[in-house]
Amino acid sequence: MKSFDPPRRILMGPGPSDVSPRVLAALSRPTVGHLDPAFQGLMEEIKDALSRLMNAPGYACLPLPAPGTAGMEAAIMNLLEPGDVAAVAVNGQFGERMVDMAGRAGAEVLRIEHDWGTPVDAQKVADALKGRKVKTLGFVHAETSTGALSDPGPLCAIAREAGALTIVDCVTSLGGVPVDAAGWGADVIYSGTQKCLSAPPGLSPFAMSPRAREAVAGRKEKARNWLLDMGLIMSYWGGEGGRTYHHTAPINALYGLHEALVVIEEEGLAAAHARHRAMHEALVAGLEAAGLSLLVAPGHRLPQLNAVKVPDGIDEAQVRSRMLAKYSLEIGAGLGPLKGQIWRIGLMGASATPWHVRLCLTALTEALAAQNYPDAGKAALAAAEARLG
Amino acid sequence: MKSFDPPRRILMGPGPSDVSPRVLAALSRPTVGHLDPAFQGLMEEIKDALSRLMNAPGYACLPLPAPGTAGMEAAIMNLLEPGDVAAVAVNGQFGERMVDMAGRAGAEVLRIEHDWGTPVDAQKVADALKGRKVKTLGFVHAETSTGALSDPGPLCAIAREAGALTIVDCVTSLGGVPVDAAGWGADVIYSGTQKCLSAPPGLSPFAMSPRAREAVAGRKEKARNWLLDMGLIMSYWGGEGGRTYHHTAPINALYGLHEALVVIEEEGLAAAHARHRAMHEALVAGLEAAGLSLLVAPGHRLPQLNAVKVPDGIDEAQVRSRMLAKYSLEIGAGLGPLKGQIWRIGLMGASATPWHVRLCLTALTEALAAQNYPDAGKAALAAAEARLG
Repeated sequence: MKSFDPPRRILMGPGPSDVSPRVLAALSRPTVGHLDPAFQGLMEEIKDALSRLMNAPGYACLPLPAPGTAGMEAAIMNLLEPGDVAAVAVNGQFGERMVDMAGRAGAEVLRIEHDWGTPVDAQKVADALKGRKVKTLGFVHAETSTGALSDPGPLCAIAREAGALTIVDCVTSLGGVPVDAAGWGADVIYSGTQKCLSAPPGLSPFAMSPRAREAVAGRKEKARNWLLDMGLIMSYWGGEGGRTYHHTAPINALYGLHEALVVIEEEGLAAAHARHRAMHEALVAGLEAAGLSLLVAPGHRLPQLNAVKVPDGIDEAQVRSRMLAKYSLEIGAGLGPLKGQIWRIGLMGASATPWHVRLCLTALTEALAAQNYPDAGKAALAAAEARLG
Repeated sequence: MKSFDPPRRILMGPGPSDVSPRVLAALSRPTVGHLDPAFQGLMEEIKDALSRLMNAPGYACLPLPAPGTAGMEAAIMNLLEPGDVAAVAVNGQFGERMVDMAGRAGAEVLRIEHDWGTPVDAQKVADALKGRKVKTLGFVHAETSTGALSDPGPLCAIAREAGALTIVDCVTSLGGVPVDAAGWGADVIYSGTQKCLSAPPGLSPFAMSPRAREAVAGRKEKARNWLLDMGLIMSYWGGEGGRTYHHTAPINALYGLHEALVVIEEEGLAAAHARHRAMHEALVAGLEAAGLSLLVAPGHRLPQLNAVKVPDGIDEAQVRSRMLAKYSLEIGAGLGPLKGQIWRIGLMGASATPWHVRLCLTALTEALAAQNYPDAGKAALAAAEARLG
């Protein structure tokens, strides 16, 4: 067994995205104890930065010590009790996952079905909730499996009207498009670190409204999860009464998240959103010039995750392998019903730059040409370049 | 908000322990995708190394993507179903935690009570299990809250006799004292990375016997936990049928664990155990020369975690603060009923060296002398030195 020397990749799949050298460097700073006064200062800074990033003033904000899915599980296991009705809008893989988890929480699940690749439809949700006593409405802001962006504001309003708490999956949205917990009136939102925050995977930023905290405090039985019990985790992260031991925080991973948050604040959130949008527009111009088309209709596309339809006659896996082998550039495959139908091209965080757009178009068109697809490299680059200015 | 520059500490509490520069460096290697062929090679190496480290041939071995407690929760949530009886031997904080979790899994809990600081008693366990239909027996190999070491072999034999599966908490033992899953006949064992493995906190090495896997496969209902559903996680880590997407693995944290496993294999496991034992003997000689005594009786003491009684009239918190402020050296406090009664001095992994022993004795005796305790620095160091050779 020898030390592992990973290849250097360009990460343009659905996550992880490229991690910048300064965030990588932060990971290797000396480990301190999780009860160290210096570490407690770091925790406070992270909580405050997350609250700003998610526009969640007055919410309990903290990063959970496990990958993005932990946020989904914490939301569901803490808000739902056996017998509750959990409405879930399903328009992709991650809504599907919410359904599975809600069942494990003992809830009765009310599925609100959508085609994959479409956004969540407010009218459908309103119709489904009408006259029902529903505890939670869960949906995905940015569906990583399809690249569709939904509009949380109207959905949260419908839920509030129906007396339901909202669970909004912001794993792929946070840092790439505006996330506005307070503006939407969302109750729980959560994210991951390996998407538009460009830190390594392993943590789940989480925010919970005062209304959701009340609901958790008023549970009849304990949550079906100790590690993600929000009452215990919030005490560990420090409330009015100081800190109470729970788990041991993943110290070095939190150094990385902290540095990633500093990077975003230095750039400015509005500038980061504009950059994601601009890179998306350049990429799409290039893709279209190459004769490729996107799965999601204009107006509902995520800038940071582009689902590109695989042309007829093309072996999609071979395209990805060739891009990885020749350019060390990773893009993603389709999931579930979209397997073999799409590629997923991420422009997230540190991977949303002009040179990522150029390299991806170069590598993709070259790999297509190798399968007798018309060589569109020059046209694609020219179209992108016109957008990049 | 500025980049975080942590102080350099000497970590001799109950974990995290010191992380060596080469493990810290591994954390900052470039992030690759979790589906990258190179990363899959790393996963295989980690699984194999864990299997050797825990002597768990034929077990499913892998690191869970969350701190050590995730191992406990995965064991309990996967093995237990509502209505099952879960026997738990409680001799400290972590047995107590198992009781809490087993209740959340819907199990009826059979507590087998012990005084804190004593090992688990085989006769007590045999008596408690007699004539009962029990699904699992859980206990802690190395109680981090007290420093007591229990003997898993006889306990696993009793459980097997009673038809129960065993859950053995090896969070603090793995790498410091022998962990022998196959020799004990244990069904599930789990650990943490931040103790004797000296990687940062955040992952939980986990092993499951074929018998336990069968039990999980035969469940009547889904586990009350999606993130830690072992069926899903084992598919993600690759079985006969390849890999199935579940979460996104914490890539860089796994680089750190891999490097820590290389470090242990280079030293040799037997040598690592002997080193922990030798440092413990030197530390205890020094502590005793300073007039201090240990909570746990000789013969049941963990080399890597030393629970030292606080002398009468000493403000224990002030001793720890002074050691941290003057020597940047961290030791731990007591938990639960032992709060204020003991210090916990860790000699784990990279923190189990002669210089750690010397610095700790120096700092501790100096801090005691500052509270009018007789100055025993010289005597303590001389006694330790005689053992260090």
